[in-house]
Amino acid sequence: MAEKLAPREKGFSEWYVDLVQKAKLADYSDVKGCMVIRPNGYAIWENMQRVLDKMFKDLGHKNAYFPLLIPESYLKKEAEHVEGFNPQLAVVTHAGGGKLEEPYVIRPTSETIINRSFAKWIQSYRDLPLLINQWANVMRWEMRTRLFLRTTEFLWQEGHTCHETEEDAEKETLQMLEVYRKFAEDYMAMPVMTGRKSESERFAGALRTYSIEAMMQDKKALQAGTSHNLGQNFAKAFDTTFQGRDGKQHHVWQTSWGVSTRLIGGLIMTHSDDAGLIVPPRLAPTHVVIIPIAGKATDAEKTQVLEKSHALAADLKKAGLSVVVDDDDTKSPGWKYSEHELIGTCLRVELGPKDLAKGSCVMVRRDARQKEFVQLDQAVARAQEMLEQMQKDLFEKAKTFREANTFEVNSYEEMKEKADAGFLLAHWNLDPKVEARIKEETGLTTRNRPFALKQEPGKCVVTGEPSPGRIVFSKAY
Amino acid sequence: MAEKLAPREKGFSEWYVDLVQKAKLADYSDVKGCMVIRPNGYAIWENMQRVLDKMFKDLGHKNAYFPLLIPESYLKKEAEHVEGFNPQLAVVTHAGGGKLEEPYVIRPTSETIINRSFAKWIQSYRDLPLLINQWANVMRWEMRTRLFLRTTEFLWQEGHTCHETEEDAEKETLQMLEVYRKFAEDYMAMPVMTGRKSESERFAGALRTYSIEAMMQDKKALQAGTSHNLGQNFAKAFDTTFQGRDGKQHHVWQTSWGVSTRLIGGLIMTHSDDAGLIVPPRLAPTHVVIIPIAGKATDAEKTQVLEKSHALAADLKKAGLSVVVDDDDTKSPGWKYSEHELIGTCLRVELGPKDLAKGSCVMVRRDARQKEFVQLDQAVARAQEMLEQMQKDLFEKAKTFREANTFEVNSYEEMKEKADAGFLLAHWNLDPKVEARIKEETGLTTRNRPFALKQEPGKCVVTGEPSPGRIVFSKAY
Ligand SMILES: [Zn+2]
Ligand SMILES: [Zn+2]
Repeated sequence: MAEKLAPREKGFSEWYVDLVQKAKLADYSDVKGCMVIRPNGYAIWENMQRVLDKMFKDLGHKNAYFPLLIPESYLKKEAEHVEGFNPQLAVVTHAGGGKLEEPYVIRPTSETIINRSFAKWIQSYRDLPLLINQWANVMRWEMRTRLFLRTTEFLWQEGHTCHETEEDAEKETLQMLEVYRKFAEDYMAMPVMTGRKSESERFAGALRTYSIEAMMQDKKALQAGTSHNLGQNFAKAFDTTFQGRDGKQHHVWQTSWGVSTRLIGGLIMTHSDDAGLIVPPRLAPTHVVIIPIAGKATDAEKTQVLEKSHALAADLKKAGLSVVVDDDDTKSPGWKYSEHELIGTCLRVELGPKDLAKGSCVMVRRDARQKEFVQLDQAVARAQEMLEQMQKDLFEKAKTFREANTFEVNSYEEMKEKADAGFLLAHWNLDPKVEARIKEETGLTTRNRPFALKQEPGKCVVTGEPSPGRIVFSKAY
Repeated sequence: MAEKLAPREKGFSEWYVDLVQKAKLADYSDVKGCMVIRPNGYAIWENMQRVLDKMFKDLGHKNAYFPLLIPESYLKKEAEHVEGFNPQLAVVTHAGGGKLEEPYVIRPTSETIINRSFAKWIQSYRDLPLLINQWANVMRWEMRTRLFLRTTEFLWQEGHTCHETEEDAEKETLQMLEVYRKFAEDYMAMPVMTGRKSESERFAGALRTYSIEAMMQDKKALQAGTSHNLGQNFAKAFDTTFQGRDGKQHHVWQTSWGVSTRLIGGLIMTHSDDAGLIVPPRLAPTHVVIIPIAGKATDAEKTQVLEKSHALAADLKKAGLSVVVDDDDTKSPGWKYSEHELIGTCLRVELGPKDLAKGSCVMVRRDARQKEFVQLDQAVARAQEMLEQMQKDLFEKAKTFREANTFEVNSYEEMKEKADAGFLLAHWNLDPKVEARIKEETGLTTRNRPFALKQEPGKCVVTGEPSPGRIVFSKAY
């Protein structure tokens, strides 16, 4: 049998780390807090990239690439930005055999170095909007790290755009948040709340930060993507100006937005079970594994089963599915079932001489794990249906779970009692000191103020002071 | 009119740098030797990546991602490797607000850190071959840099494979060299010589290094890709072993191979002209620009022309081509012709009221720059033909150029005279000191010993000593 995972009940964290390693998604490295993304994990990232990249380009964004290293002085130009990122920087002090005159930092994010280019490229309002995206590695020195969720180096995309007006920038900020919502829900099958972050959770240097927040199976929140309206803060620091329609020079209005390999952690923690990884079909590297069953079959029967397996694989591939035939005869069918459950193959097809005699096969969906007998001449159509249904079911299951674990709380007592219960909708007086006290005392942080939540005035659960409306509190990754 | 380029005759280098910047392919940054790859340049890289990635995967390679930072001690494990790369390293000494106990270097290439993982992943011969590729940024501190051709940071892919036997490793090394040849010739339309590098040009830590070498329009050589048989050097340094079919532990046999954003420089210098960039259609971000001509047309005629332009664009897109309609009415047709020649759009379609009345349009191939009248109902088929022909013609032209500038030389005198004439096929006694003297005195370096060149014994042009066969000398980037 394949190796068993630590079950979720015994400890969600242990289960997660065990799954990531046993399913060969990622591995620790000797470099502090840096992971190795193994082929099984990287294949999911490639599928995510392909979908997101198309969504960005369909909206007019173009990819570019900016230097990994940023002169230290750039970061200092935007005061809040450098203060926010300073403790997390990795610094290059020596290169080419000597000490550098000015140290470079490895980009923790690229607003500063990108603005240096934007300031050169933009002359007039005709150059706007400027819609750029970069796929890159970034580095933030973290104290406590966890594979995919928080690593010193991670892979991401960072969008950076410039606009003529504040309104245009706000529109872009919200548009890209909506792209992230759509990607999370329609592809990752991970329901998310879109909304605005609190002042203390705002990106260092932004006017406003919005996020998508998902609920993991342990009822903790995962911030899965952020979109920032940067206003003119970086434009003023780097003098990124344009000649407006009025003939005068103005600073551009900017946005930035990003999602990272953290999404892979979110995908795992939303859907997977004690048997291993579950991947929504629209992002799955492998849709179908066909396992020929030999058993006590004659050689002629074995040959027939193998031939039919490969013929079926060819048909499934023609229909656009990713398929493997696992005909390794040093492993038992049982071992293969476990292995493909572990690595998250969406659909298993079992095919033996008896099935073949009846013109049928057995299909098992990874999430439901129920056997279904399917006529071979219906196999392609049925596989497609089952994958579509699986995509929908995963989303609905996760959404139902989130709804069952979302509560209105009306007192600080109730909040403390429900601290581990999921998403808590509570009134708060907007005071960062109160937010900090809640975090200190309960471990709960504000996630965002969801657009979907009607804002009605009330009283802060801690101070009794006026609150403009409820915000979501939760423990979080 | 669009900005004019410095012509090639006045100085090939100046022309190149001018073109790269005016066509908005790349830009200098304030970070020493690092470039910004602008959307026009990055789009070519994305097309290159897409083609190469598929070629690698079709041969069974899988993508993964390894840490950017490498502990300094790793590099020291392979003595020749650290000696080769030491002068080019960028070093991180501080991170997270403190001094690091052991410094990290930014990867100049990843053999060492990847072997650390391979050593953990590989147990038995059943795990072999292990075929991994990584798309990544790397950093080599260079003294003299040039956009795309030699930059401190560059983007590349690095393949890393492990095999059971030396023969398997050699087979993989040559197979990937052949992939590079095919990519260079069939996609970049850039003829290359495949062959083995001399001992002094061997990769630091490899048994044997092979390369593809192309001739630029200034008759200098560009090493466009390398494939290394690493033998067991890194496997021994990192103890990457497997249990063999004989039940005993053996060190794996390894290869590595890479191409980088340098290819973009090669593409530019192979095909482009004084009007700007020329991109082979199979890698071109934009195949066709349709330019509606208004002239003294009536409003009704203008509307008709615009409608037909967009209809034609839709038809061309349906045929799989990338198309833009340049209907910006603040620019003249002449300006647009120059602009699209500068940025390398493969095919220009001019469409005015007179053309429309005759049911035709004008097509102009970027490389040939000759007008051709084409019936509108033939336009899609003709555009496809012209692009296919352009792809072939670019290759043939470059090949003819290389052949016209390749010479056998039989004395050191002749070699010196022809030092700038192109590829020189000369006998050499294999002595690195003689190779170094030739470089010192003439600027010529050995490129490779082409597989296509029959090896017949002769006498070294410098020493008169025995030579096993001719090798290619040339000035090089
Ligand atoms: Zn202003
Ligand atoms: Zn051995």
